[in-house]
Amino acid sequence: MTPVLQSVSEWDGLNQPTATMGTEMYRFLSALFPLNRSLTGDAVRQTLRHIQQVLPELAIIDVPTGTAAFDWVVPDEWNLREAFVVDPDGNRILDSSRNNLHVVGYSEPVDCVLTKEQLNQHLHSLPDQPEAIPYVTSYYKRQWGFCLKHSDRERLPEGRYRVRIDATLQPGALSYGEAILPGREDGEVLLSCYVCHPSMANDSLSGVSVAAYLGQWLRQLDRRYTYRLVFVPETLGAIVYLSRNLERMKQRTIAGFVLTCCGDERTYSFVPSRLGNTLADRVAKYVLLRNADPCIYYSWLDRGSDERQYCSPGVDLPVASIMRSKYREFPEYHTSLDNLCLVTPHGLEGTYTVLKECLSIIESNGSYRTLVTCEPQLGKRGLYPTLSVKGSARSASGMLDVLSFCDGAHDLLQIAEQTALPFASCLDVVSHLQRAGLVARVSSIN
Amino acid sequence: MTPVLQSVSEWDGLNQPTATMGTEMYRFLSALFPLNRSLTGDAVRQTLRHIQQVLPELAIIDVPTGTAAFDWVVPDEWNLREAFVVDPDGNRILDSSRNNLHVVGYSEPVDCVLTKEQLNQHLHSLPDQPEAIPYVTSYYKRQWGFCLKHSDRERLPEGRYRVRIDATLQPGALSYGEAILPGREDGEVLLSCYVCHPSMANDSLSGVSVAAYLGQWLRQLDRRYTYRLVFVPETLGAIVYLSRNLERMKQRTIAGFVLTCCGDERTYSFVPSRLGNTLADRVAKYVLLRNADPCIYYSWLDRGSDERQYCSPGVDLPVASIMRSKYREFPEYHTSLDNLCLVTPHGLEGTYTVLKECLSIIESNGSYRTLVTCEPQLGKRGLYPTLSVKGSARSASGMLDVLSFCDGAHDLLQIAEQTALPFASCLDVVSHLQRAGLVARVSSIN
Amino acid sequence: MTPVLQSVSEWDGLNQPTATMGTEMYRFLSALFPLNRSLTGDAVRQTLRHIQQVLPELAIIDVPTGTAAFDWVVPDEWNLREAFVVDPDGNRILDSSRNNLHVVGYSEPVDCVLTKEQLNQHLHSLPDQPEAIPYVTSYYKRQWGFCLKHSDRERLPEGRYRVRIDATLQPGALSYGEAILPGREDGEVLLSCYVCHPSMANDSLSGVSVAAYLGQWLRQLDRRYTYRLVFVPETLGAIVYLSRNLERMKQRTIAGFVLTCCGDERTYSFVPSRLGNTLADRVAKYVLLRNADPCIYYSWLDRGSDERQYCSPGVDLPVASIMRSKYREFPEYHTSLDNLCLVTPHGLEGTYTVLKECLSIIESNGSYRTLVTCEPQLGKRGLYPTLSVKGSARSASGMLDVLSFCDGAHDLLQIAEQTALPFASCLDVVSHLQRAGLVARVSSIN
Repeated sequence: MTPVLQSVSEWDGLNQPTATMGTEMYRFLSALFPLNRSLTGDAVRQTLRHIQQVLPELAIIDVPTGTAAFDWVVPDEWNLREAFVVDPDGNRILDSSRNNLHVVGYSEPVDCVLTKEQLNQHLHSLPDQPEAIPYVTSYYKRQWGFCLKHSDRERLPEGRYRVRIDATLQPGALSYGEAILPGREDGEVLLSCYVCHPSMANDSLSGVSVAAYLGQWLRQLDRRYTYRLVFVPETLGAIVYLSRNLERMKQRTIAGFVLTCCGDERTYSFVPSRLGNTLADRVAKYVLLRNADPCIYYSWLDRGSDERQYCSPGVDLPVASIMRSKYREFPEYHTSLDNLCLVTPHGLEGTYTVLKECLSIIESNGSYRTLVTCEPQLGKRGLYPTLSVKGSARSASGMLDVLSFCDGAHDLLQIAEQTALPFASCLDVVSHLQRAGLVARVSSIN
Repeated sequence: MTPVLQSVSEWDGLNQPTATMGTEMYRFLSALFPLNRSLTGDAVRQTLRHIQQVLPELAIIDVPTGTAAFDWVVPDEWNLREAFVVDPDGNRILDSSRNNLHVVGYSEPVDCVLTKEQLNQHLHSLPDQPEAIPYVTSYYKRQWGFCLKHSDRERLPEGRYRVRIDATLQPGALSYGEAILPGREDGEVLLSCYVCHPSMANDSLSGVSVAAYLGQWLRQLDRRYTYRLVFVPETLGAIVYLSRNLERMKQRTIAGFVLTCCGDERTYSFVPSRLGNTLADRVAKYVLLRNADPCIYYSWLDRGSDERQYCSPGVDLPVASIMRSKYREFPEYHTSLDNLCLVTPHGLEGTYTVLKECLSIIESNGSYRTLVTCEPQLGKRGLYPTLSVKGSARSASGMLDVLSFCDGAHDLLQIAEQTALPFASCLDVVSHLQRAGLVARVSSIN
Repeated sequence: MTPVLQSVSEWDGLNQPTATMGTEMYRFLSALFPLNRSLTGDAVRQTLRHIQQVLPELAIIDVPTGTAAFDWVVPDEWNLREAFVVDPDGNRILDSSRNNLHVVGYSEPVDCVLTKEQLNQHLHSLPDQPEAIPYVTSYYKRQWGFCLKHSDRERLPEGRYRVRIDATLQPGALSYGEAILPGREDGEVLLSCYVCHPSMANDSLSGVSVAAYLGQWLRQLDRRYTYRLVFVPETLGAIVYLSRNLERMKQRTIAGFVLTCCGDERTYSFVPSRLGNTLADRVAKYVLLRNADPCIYYSWLDRGSDERQYCSPGVDLPVASIMRSKYREFPEYHTSLDNLCLVTPHGLEGTYTVLKECLSIIESNGSYRTLVTCEPQLGKRGLYPTLSVKGSARSASGMLDVLSFCDGAHDLLQIAEQTALPFASCLDVVSHLQRAGLVARVSSIN
């Protein structure tokens, strides 16, 4: 199932061995899994500090409670010390120290004794998935609650329950991470993932791991473009981030991807940008069609993560999503079953490789124009057979085909599609032609 | 067969009961049926005065004989007192007082006795439809003639026939009616039908009835747009009308429909405008596809009424046609069989309802743009669930989908098509969002 | 198989009898077949002088050795006096006087005795086509060689061979022919073929013959456009020609065709221009679809002659190719089997007729705009029935359809496609309308 990708040979470092990359990303993800992240709080900052071990360029930014961001305001910071429920027999039946999901995210503090009926008002379970603990949050309305397996809920005895949530909801900050890896030219590529989910392995953490390790790969390269790697709490974090960086991002971003749900081994998924035909869309579809068959091509209506912000009207960044099982579409989504069993080294490495191929193509893409009128004399440069026999023209036909589209209007991706030659071959051809002084690169930004 | 239309709830008055509308329109049509209309003449003015009872705003305009209109000139006015043929046995076999169609429209006066052979030169019948009297006119070449059933023609005895047509062809006027129902904004919608056909129920009169009653509905509404209802003799009347109103109509018309052949109960028909993708075309196809299945979608080459003028090069108005059985395509067309049996209250009401839905959508359509960058915080406005549980996002997804196209470039009709939401739902969403101050209407003219 | 073409009646001379045209072209081609043409040399000039008999306007231009043309330089001129090989038994087994293909084109002089093994280094044959002598050249690297049937090669005895090539490679000229047939308006049409192939009947000579006889037809006409007929050595000749005429050709050329491989009787072929939707492409496809079914529609990637130069980026002329069996695709290609048996009078006449139809349409094509607003009154000009009876409108519907597209934006070719009327009928209509003062031609250049 891992796609066999033909590397783009031009870019240093692309051919580095990645055999153990999946295992490394899985280990990294596993270390982040136990932290009880939320929209804000210490676990977010712990997560960001862990990412710095892979991506030292990562800056951690704290945005204080009360800060306005477009239509939103950063809320109080939430930190949980402990949360548990003790049943009438004295058993601690629910405990956030056993599973982060047991407590509703952003629950207000509570410490009381309740009847089973009163407690029931605050419990969440999934009748259709009786063995899964659901993931529930209430960021913007103060309430409290616990989540549990529906099978356990049905066995709760009558009687009085001790409930305690020891949490603080106080002015603090929303924290996010940002790594800017500068390039030689003006264009920027955005990679964004979210760090607000507790113990969700495929949703959220798989994207964090792949982003971190793409960063590790990118930081050692001689980059044409600047790479902007963003680790934010979903929705509000992206909005806060855009509120501080919008103008520059609008001017410079040539492509971007939201990274999430990329760690299982199931079919690939694609969600386009709102505009639908940006460089990000074109590259992603080119790579997925050739290397990730089958792939489910969703519509913009199926979006669901931070492309909602990046692609919103007036923002209009060219941001698409490449995933394995898409959020909302896999049964384990937003439950305790989205765990370290669902995500695998193999699954992570597959998506990592697809995205690396996309970024390699973006780095290498460009339009070219001929520097000579009519066909150049390839023969005198050793690029064409000197003896014309039946069929000899064929050996140079790929080069002439690519050259015939070096009109400044077609980029290499379009040339690859029109000539049905691999992108890497088209790149080889223009590199040869460029060294021979026959073509020049027109523009790095499509 | 009557389409069940989902009303656009925004617009006052749209939900008025229409159960008896078909009957009313049928009664109205029946009263107009006996008048012997032609290109000009008293019967046209009688018809227009009858329409004033439903649509008091209707002005009757007389354009004198000899007036030039582009390539044409208004001819002498024709008024018929009587026309008959008496057979050799003294029987009055053809008589315009029994059926208007018996005399060729615009026949010059004649009063003489002829042999059967001589008379035959002036007779018109349909061998393929022996029981139908054809409808024949000769507006621009002076001649005379009678029309009869082919079965009757074959039984005519030898002998001498008395022929008399007592008609006047004298300077007078071409008369037409115009009702302008002003709106709050600059855009105009054109509804045009023709009043030159004698005793044609589906062709011509069904359109007159539906236009009159659409006018009755429109006049009591708080209108965004101005409605221009035009009752003209076909072809020359439309040309004369355009010659007097072209500049304003070109500047303001956002959509228009030619109304005819909308009274029988058969399959709906659509004829596009010449440009093919105007607002009129888009709205008509949207409504017909959802509410009038099956419908025959004709091409511009199948046109045949006043859209020939409204859409001609240099005029280029956005005018399409919604019909039941299209002119030229139904067997009763242009014969005495296109009568009060062919048209029904049910048939009239169906087309009336389809057109009302089209006009409602045109009134409500528009482009919107967001007033906040990124997604607004819908939760604090009660528009988004405060508790995030698996699946909760779905409840607001329609609103977010619509909002994501509030970019000033998509109108509601396009948004409805892209999101697969009903137009009325899209309108509900933007109305909510507009009241919440989150979006603004960009332009009323598409 | 010869297409039956509906002539465009407007253009004088189009209906001249062509029954014997195929025979004439075949005779002309046969006279040129024995000349041992190459990239340069006396045989090219002899060929051009022969063309002057049909096309007296043809100018012969000599471009001296050493002249630069874009990335290329005109090489020394090659002239062959004799070339032969004598086998160990004294038999003259290969002799350019028996078949021009026996000697590799542009071979350097040689006169020596060799072993069979030494000779073998210089022999070319086709194991897959053992009875065909291949056509081989080496224009830009000095070497020598002989070509022979593979079946003969296998029977060569051991021993010593006498080899002699008496050829000169000296400063001289590259020669080409050009006939400019001026027209009344500014647009130009390019017809280009190549004169560098020895004894190739379908490849090269069929194009030369058809071009010459199209010229003979064009020269006697009253032409709207200028016709530029170009007879050049392939590739370098076209590059040299463009280097001297590029600016004017870029400004004026409205369509062009490369003529080659048009003499056999097999399926027609089409190669589009690089831009793909020029007037040349549109006309060719219009004619081929209607008159040359079946036809193989190749892509730009299948190109292979001088459209490589005419359509190269920055040159961008609207040049397509209409052929029978396309170069590289038929088995006789570039062998001694591409001879006077493969080409037939019938085959030549078919392609000639298709191209004549294309040129006729190009001459007659144009956009028109109405001079009156709304429909003109056709009846008063005798163009519409004066009596309106059921069905009478149909007689004028084609005229009204064409008229409805006289908006200055559609050319006749588009109108023919949109109305499904024959091009000739559309032309008849606008000619009538133009004489009646109802429309005016907008532009001769599409």
